[in-house]
Amino acid sequence: MNLRQRPRIGVMGPGACTERGLQLAREVGLCIGREGGILICGGLGGVMESAAMGAKEAGGITVGILPGDGAADANPYIDIPIVTGMGNARNAINVLTSQAIIAIHGAYGTLSEIALALKCGTPVVALETWTMTPPEAMPVRGMTVAATPREAVEQALRLIRAAESGS
Amino acid sequence: MNLRQRPRIGVMGPGACTERGLQLAREVGLCIGREGGILICGGLGGVMESAAMGAKEAGGITVGILPGDGAADANPYIDIPIVTGMGNARNAINVLTSQAIIAIHGAYGTLSEIALALKCGTPVVALETWTMTPPEAMPVRGMTVAATPREAVEQALRLIRAAESGS
Amino acid sequence: MNLRQRPRIGVMGPGACTERGLQLAREVGLCIGREGGILICGGLGGVMESAAMGAKEAGGITVGILPGDGAADANPYIDIPIVTGMGNARNAINVLTSQAIIAIHGAYGTLSEIALALKCGTPVVALETWTMTPPEAMPVRGMTVAATPREAVEQALRLIRAAESGS
Amino acid sequence: MNLRQRPRIGVMGPGACTERGLQLAREVGLCIGREGGILICGGLGGVMESAAMGAKEAGGITVGILPGDGAADANPYIDIPIVTGMGNARNAINVLTSQAIIAIHGAYGTLSEIALALKCGTPVVALETWTMTPPEAMPVRGMTVAATPREAVEQALRLIRAAESGS
Repeated sequence: MNLRQRPRIGVMGPGACTERGLQLAREVGLCIGREGGILICGGLGGVMESAAMGAKEAGGITVGILPGDGAADANPYIDIPIVTGMGNARNAINVLTSQAIIAIHGAYGTLSEIALALKCGTPVVALETWTMTPPEAMPVRGMTVAATPREAVEQALRLIRAAESGS
Repeated sequence: MNLRQRPRIGVMGPGACTERGLQLAREVGLCIGREGGILICGGLGGVMESAAMGAKEAGGITVGILPGDGAADANPYIDIPIVTGMGNARNAINVLTSQAIIAIHGAYGTLSEIALALKCGTPVVALETWTMTPPEAMPVRGMTVAATPREAVEQALRLIRAAESGS
Repeated sequence: MNLRQRPRIGVMGPGACTERGLQLAREVGLCIGREGGILICGGLGGVMESAAMGAKEAGGITVGILPGDGAADANPYIDIPIVTGMGNARNAINVLTSQAIIAIHGAYGTLSEIALALKCGTPVVALETWTMTPPEAMPVRGMTVAATPREAVEQALRLIRAAESGS
Repeated sequence: MNLRQRPRIGVMGPGACTERGLQLAREVGLCIGREGGILICGGLGGVMESAAMGAKEAGGITVGILPGDGAADANPYIDIPIVTGMGNARNAINVLTSQAIIAIHGAYGTLSEIALALKCGTPVVALETWTMTPPEAMPVRGMTVAATPREAVEQALRLIRAAESGS
């Protein structure tokens, strides 16, 4: 099994969210799994768990980059728990490890991941998440908006391929 | 010299910014220095340097929490360089170390610091910085807006005292 | 494919080493792969690459926890690159993520991983690596010595099972 | 007050140790304070607290780089708590921030700091601490042994000056 060529897509979202957020996350996970992607997430509950559940239903591989110091914190749909022991600082690892991220709903942790992704050049696909207005009318580059889970995953894959081909 | 009781105020802003951003930062630094505060920042140029310069002009102490792996990266107004070698993950340290942060203008790094501060419970004072609209009308708690540098520092000090008295 | 129950064994060793070190690493990797384990390593060259090569030859899964900020740093036998961007601080993640580590030869980075593993309670199996004498005759607990690659992997698996059964 | 030119000397040692270890640490701290140095340490108890106490008695400045997520963890002799929230990964920051480290007695955390310092090129002065034998007779460079606290601080200062003059 050669996993290296599979796209690594991050799904970022809150540990506690509405039923709608969970449903969007599961559908995003299903699409990632069907496309043969590796789902990267924060490894905990809520959007992270629902997306990982979807990915596993579709035969995908899931990685959970955990803030705490034990693998037991990972939700049951995580194949590979990465145990960082560094709290929110692990958000920087989430976005460096993902080739693109899909942000779903979200509280402050998700907002930090959107910002860190834009900072380090990882493309962001927004699915009913934060909107931000920068000071001094600075343009926000590197973020696109998707209307549906399927569209979000298609955009993420397109952005990854574009980066790989250097375009 | 007992420094422990002095308020530790973070000033978060971009490494490259307009003249207005630099001027706001310098005035914030001056106010922090006059109040006997310890200025915490990312240690590099732009808003970080201008704020540190202001703080030193007013006799304050400055700490620069650097992303790179050498103290030489610190701007000349940093008293105590903290060398993390962890890139943007150091933003999480900036906001845990500060008892309150003042965000000035800012690009993506600053946005991540606002988000990480709100996540970990460090109060945020906004001075001509990002505005964010959360999904699903979640209220943003822990962020106040200041109109001037002086007002920003006064708000930060008030928030720190409130936290210390447990109110 | 359910990967969660597979043992996660860290192989820690230097990026530059002798032919003998590379050979030991490859055999350790082969044994891990044959046992259905997930090999955790630092993702770079030398012992890390040779162990990952062995694991892939035997059909295993490999994770590389990288110090730099790009997945392209990973050696060609890494299935899942984790991009930390935090230099040597990532050594703490290597040993928290592994359920046991096997240290092979090694320079200072490997010594730090042995120490961090002992500190956080991850069992260490030593294969021709550092020996350390603590001050004040403190006993070093949690470290065993193996004579061969096969023995090292068997010891690691035994230690993981013992920890899982709470003994 | 210009603190930037003052030597930053790390004192690394265990949180729990013998009376002798505490005494050595206090004397090292006193010498650092008398020399106008900035003491860098892990911020907690034991050797860290005793060294910081000594440094404050002699009018020095103390920085505690804490593993937890609150400044309240710092011992009472820390002027400037740096709150990392990243557990043992903060050991990498301790040794990058120090221009030289003095290792006193020590358990596994101290051993990891010795190793990380050697890895990143920060000189190490050993004061009744670990001795290590590398595999394959690799020479250990960058570590010197001191017989007394005064000698340890003198060696650290000499090593810092040598590094600054590029020799």
